[in-house]
Amino acid sequence: MQPHLVDITTEVPEAHPVAPPPKQSTLQRLKIWTKETFFSDDPLRQFRGQPLQRKLILGAQYVFPVLEWAPKYNLKLLKSDLISGITIASLAIPQGISYAKLANLPPILGLYSSFVPPLVYVVLGSSKDLGVGPVSIASLVMGSMLQDEVSPIEDPDLFLKLALTSTFFAGLFQAALGILRLGFIIDFLSKAILLGFMAGSAVIVSLQQLKSLLGIKHFTKKMAIIPVMKSVFHKTDESIKKPKLFWISAGAPLVCVIISTILAFAIKAQHHGISIIGKLPKGINPPSTDKLIFNGSHLGLVIKTGFITGILSLTEGIAVGRTFAALRNYKVDGNKEMMAIGLMNVVGCTTSCYITTGSFSRSAVNNSAGAKTAMSNVIMSLAVLVTLLFLMPLFHYTPNVILGAIIITAVIGLIDIPAAYLLWKIDKFDFLVMLVAFFGVIFISVQYGLAMAVGLSILKVLLQITRPKTVVLGKIPGTDIYRDLHHYKEAARVPGFLILRIEAPINFANITYLHERILRWIEEVEENNLMKDFSLQFVVLEMSAVSTVDSSGVSLFKDLNIALGHKGVELALVNPLAEVLVKLKKADEGHNKIRDDYLFVTVGEAVASLSSTLKTPTVGEEVQETVVEC
Amino acid sequence: MQPHLVDITTEVPEAHPVAPPPKQSTLQRLKIWTKETFFSDDPLRQFRGQPLQRKLILGAQYVFPVLEWAPKYNLKLLKSDLISGITIASLAIPQGISYAKLANLPPILGLYSSFVPPLVYVVLGSSKDLGVGPVSIASLVMGSMLQDEVSPIEDPDLFLKLALTSTFFAGLFQAALGILRLGFIIDFLSKAILLGFMAGSAVIVSLQQLKSLLGIKHFTKKMAIIPVMKSVFHKTDESIKKPKLFWISAGAPLVCVIISTILAFAIKAQHHGISIIGKLPKGINPPSTDKLIFNGSHLGLVIKTGFITGILSLTEGIAVGRTFAALRNYKVDGNKEMMAIGLMNVVGCTTSCYITTGSFSRSAVNNSAGAKTAMSNVIMSLAVLVTLLFLMPLFHYTPNVILGAIIITAVIGLIDIPAAYLLWKIDKFDFLVMLVAFFGVIFISVQYGLAMAVGLSILKVLLQITRPKTVVLGKIPGTDIYRDLHHYKEAARVPGFLILRIEAPINFANITYLHERILRWIEEVEENNLMKDFSLQFVVLEMSAVSTVDSSGVSLFKDLNIALGHKGVELALVNPLAEVLVKLKKADEGHNKIRDDYLFVTVGEAVASLSSTLKTPTVGEEVQETVVEC
Repeated sequence: MQPHLVDITTEVPEAHPVAPPPKQSTLQRLKIWTKETFFSDDPLRQFRGQPLQRKLILGAQYVFPVLEWAPKYNLKLLKSDLISGITIASLAIPQGISYAKLANLPPILGLYSSFVPPLVYVVLGSSKDLGVGPVSIASLVMGSMLQDEVSPIEDPDLFLKLALTSTFFAGLFQAALGILRLGFIIDFLSKAILLGFMAGSAVIVSLQQLKSLLGIKHFTKKMAIIPVMKSVFHKTDESIKKPKLFWISAGAPLVCVIISTILAFAIKAQHHGISIIGKLPKGINPPSTDKLIFNGSHLGLVIKTGFITGILSLTEGIAVGRTFAALRNYKVDGNKEMMAIGLMNVVGCTTSCYITTGSFSRSAVNNSAGAKTAMSNVIMSLAVLVTLLFLMPLFHYTPNVILGAIIITAVIGLIDIPAAYLLWKIDKFDFLVMLVAFFGVIFISVQYGLAMAVGLSILKVLLQITRPKTVVLGKIPGTDIYRDLHHYKEAARVPGFLILRIEAPINFANITYLHERILRWIEEVEENNLMKDFSLQFVVLEMSAVSTVDSSGVSLFKDLNIALGHKGVELALVNPLAEVLVKLKKADEGHNKIRDDYLFVTVGEAVASLSSTLKTPTVGEEVQETVVEC
Repeated sequence: MQPHLVDITTEVPEAHPVAPPPKQSTLQRLKIWTKETFFSDDPLRQFRGQPLQRKLILGAQYVFPVLEWAPKYNLKLLKSDLISGITIASLAIPQGISYAKLANLPPILGLYSSFVPPLVYVVLGSSKDLGVGPVSIASLVMGSMLQDEVSPIEDPDLFLKLALTSTFFAGLFQAALGILRLGFIIDFLSKAILLGFMAGSAVIVSLQQLKSLLGIKHFTKKMAIIPVMKSVFHKTDESIKKPKLFWISAGAPLVCVIISTILAFAIKAQHHGISIIGKLPKGINPPSTDKLIFNGSHLGLVIKTGFITGILSLTEGIAVGRTFAALRNYKVDGNKEMMAIGLMNVVGCTTSCYITTGSFSRSAVNNSAGAKTAMSNVIMSLAVLVTLLFLMPLFHYTPNVILGAIIITAVIGLIDIPAAYLLWKIDKFDFLVMLVAFFGVIFISVQYGLAMAVGLSILKVLLQITRPKTVVLGKIPGTDIYRDLHHYKEAARVPGFLILRIEAPINFANITYLHERILRWIEEVEENNLMKDFSLQFVVLEMSAVSTVDSSGVSLFKDLNIALGHKGVELALVNPLAEVLVKLKKADEGHNKIRDDYLFVTVGEAVASLSSTLKTPTVGEEVQETVVEC
């Protein structure tokens, strides 16, 4: 298994030439760029080479994934879906009522929102596990952003209108992200940001609920229920890992609601100062198109609220969908999911639903209860329908305190200390981002907390570009491998050469830095006499990691050539990538600054080839091994 | 010169191990990061290892570069500086008067601003060639931003106050950038942006001036001078290349002013409807601390104006300083220059000077006229002083039209068509950025035009991070070199292996994309049967270009391992860099997902080592060369 090597036994070794990259027109490059940027998942792949009829079927299935699984649906699947559907319904009903309260909306809206949106999702969505409905984060954010301008107590009607209109904009925005294939925007909400943001939100919500809990008499008696429920609820997140426990977390809220409602009814709680939900309207979702308002002084607010709640709920929905898809080894199409969630909200807002998405807790329970297809959402919907039509009077005596308890236990689970510790361990900067999101949300506001954390994350990425690493490479003795001198201690400098690896695209943001930094590496060599008896004659730039250059980037090489010329040092480039090579040649036309004989495919070949022209009396057999320890 | 290679003639070749990087504490890493980010030029290098007394002298010279060259100053240097000083004065006087008009300020301010700031710069600045004074861009921007709120005609006194206060904030901001070592912020104004911005400004200014020129009688007679001056002036930019012509561009404006003033005086121009400058106050700069206003409704405007003009003038000053330093092979310290220019403006605004910086035209003339040190600025200052004290009445009859002509000819030179063409040729996106700056400045406003162009540049960088290139590598036959299959046509796939190179740091913004993209490369291999009789068994990730990972980035490897596990494919990493290796190990503790025997130093070693475990009956001698053409 002797490898075939280029023959470098002759005095001037013949290096493998740097190939001119294949020619591409601007249009071709634009096409490739557009494809990689916006169609990186190549969504039309499956259509290629299919007959027209098949294409039409595939197309319909692409738009309505329900067409894919519905024809194959059978009784066995239905049995699984039936059980999981009823299980999530028992979670969805108390959750729906509670989260609507969290959004400062009438409790009934939580049930409306658990009825229509799941039905829409079943037709359009591609996840088999997603349990759809209102979620705590989006509810909280919508409630708190809208009440900045309108009081839900003094003007509940206007507040409701704003909430529905915000939901419309959220849905529009989500669908637009999917259609325009800009889904990667949600990637900017990194895990670190979400961790801090969710913990911060949990703290705010808990304090809010505790405050209202503390306002009632008989407080201590009722509060005892929280630790109990907490211990139960806390298992929700873990139910993926311990499926046997899922029914505890799934059933607990409903059991609590039933027991407390019976108790409240029995002791006539309202006469003891315990507030209860009170009368709830019976019947299914009333249409609400007349409640959408697209003019007036609050338009800016609803658009902003729609944008932020839209992004947040999308992030949760997509993340949940991807998590379960990876677990069960199928694929969800991010952009298609965005369209599905977006349309679900657009339809929702016309039928008295506020913002919904794929909920983590419902999906976990759904998956654990053995859901096989999105049909479990239909079952849940039907269960909610029955509740809406017949069971609403039963909730009359449900104490509000139990809803507060459900909310608190749900959000407390969002505070993930072990994950925060892991962040601290792996990446201190991410930990800082998390802290900014956490304290920003608590002490400033949801939108500024998020914006600050996203800004900080982007700043970090920009700083990495602005200050790219330049690493001095040395030869690992006995090999032809060149690696970071500070990482591989046995690596050694090659006399007469300074070999640098640049680890970022070269562009307007870093040419000044790179220019100064490279010159300083040279000064370091000269001042510390790192070459011993040799003088520095070649600076070799290893360009494998320079994925692109822009028009400023190409000027770096011209400027470096001039600066090195003053010092009598020559510049060689190793492995410039296709795009970089093309741009260098274009900028160079006629000037001939980048000589072909100073371009090499590997560092080893560059050193071997240039060694023969070293001015010090060291040409010949020994050069490659005359390395200086440092 | 036979290279020493690892011995891979045995059946399972022993690869060079991936070294564990040297241990670094968080504090050490923070220190290195801080140094590279904010002190990349290592400004204190010269102090190291020096005795205390020497350190004090060096320290004083560091703060006041004048101390470095003044003691060595001699008569010969003075002779050179005297000539160049007087030359730039002859350019500075008409330019100063014109640019002050461009900023909607009294003409005399242009002369004030050519007197005090150069003296401050001489003490603090480190460039030998910089000619200091008002510049067209900053003048234009300040004038147009301030007149959004205050009319320079209706309330010239308030306008002046705002201009001086803006200058204060500009100086404060510039000095702060230098002190906080945030100078890299100006790097975000790329050449493409400046090109578009300057051309756009030139168009606006020219139209503005032409409008006022068209408003006067006898217009056609006077206009003829413009093409003449233009052809002369146009040489300014080229005077670096053709030093013999510098005196034409240097002297032309003054000659024009003198001739036109004499003419205007002779024909009593004001009676023919030609507007003249009129009475100018005699005497040096009056103090203006009482004119700085830090309260009232315009504070936001002056801070914004200060910020933008500060950045713009800094960009010009630093760029000019660096250009000439590179030309004459000395160094200017960017951050120190920022402090010098900033302090110059802070001092300036207390002595009736508006914003100044290193001017391209003055510096070019200064350099061509043979300036040796910053002393030429002192000479210019003295010449302006003499003018202020004795010659002001002579400008009484200078026609305003000649000032307009000077402005137009100066700014027309800012439109650089060949540079724009070069941008188009090298980088279409940079060309787009330039167009955005150009049209944004013309049709929207200076600040939005700039902001849009900067935003677009940053977006491009972010897109590069969000959509990093993944390249399939193949083996170049007869070598152990692996390169891009699409660049090196002779490179070929190794059966059983998919070798991918990831060309960006892995972080929150790109893990979703990378995950999908890598799986799609695998599908491509499987669907097109690119391995012929072999099944895909190893995905090898070449990580040389992955300079960092964040906490999201490490999760990619975990997720990939799971996804590949479903397909029966194993993951190997090649050359993970020190930081990446540390983070992977930290995230991995206890789980042992990243096995040491799946880490390799080179692709060649990975292939050689893993080939022996390939399940297809192809182990042994031939594997490395059994490549599949594609």
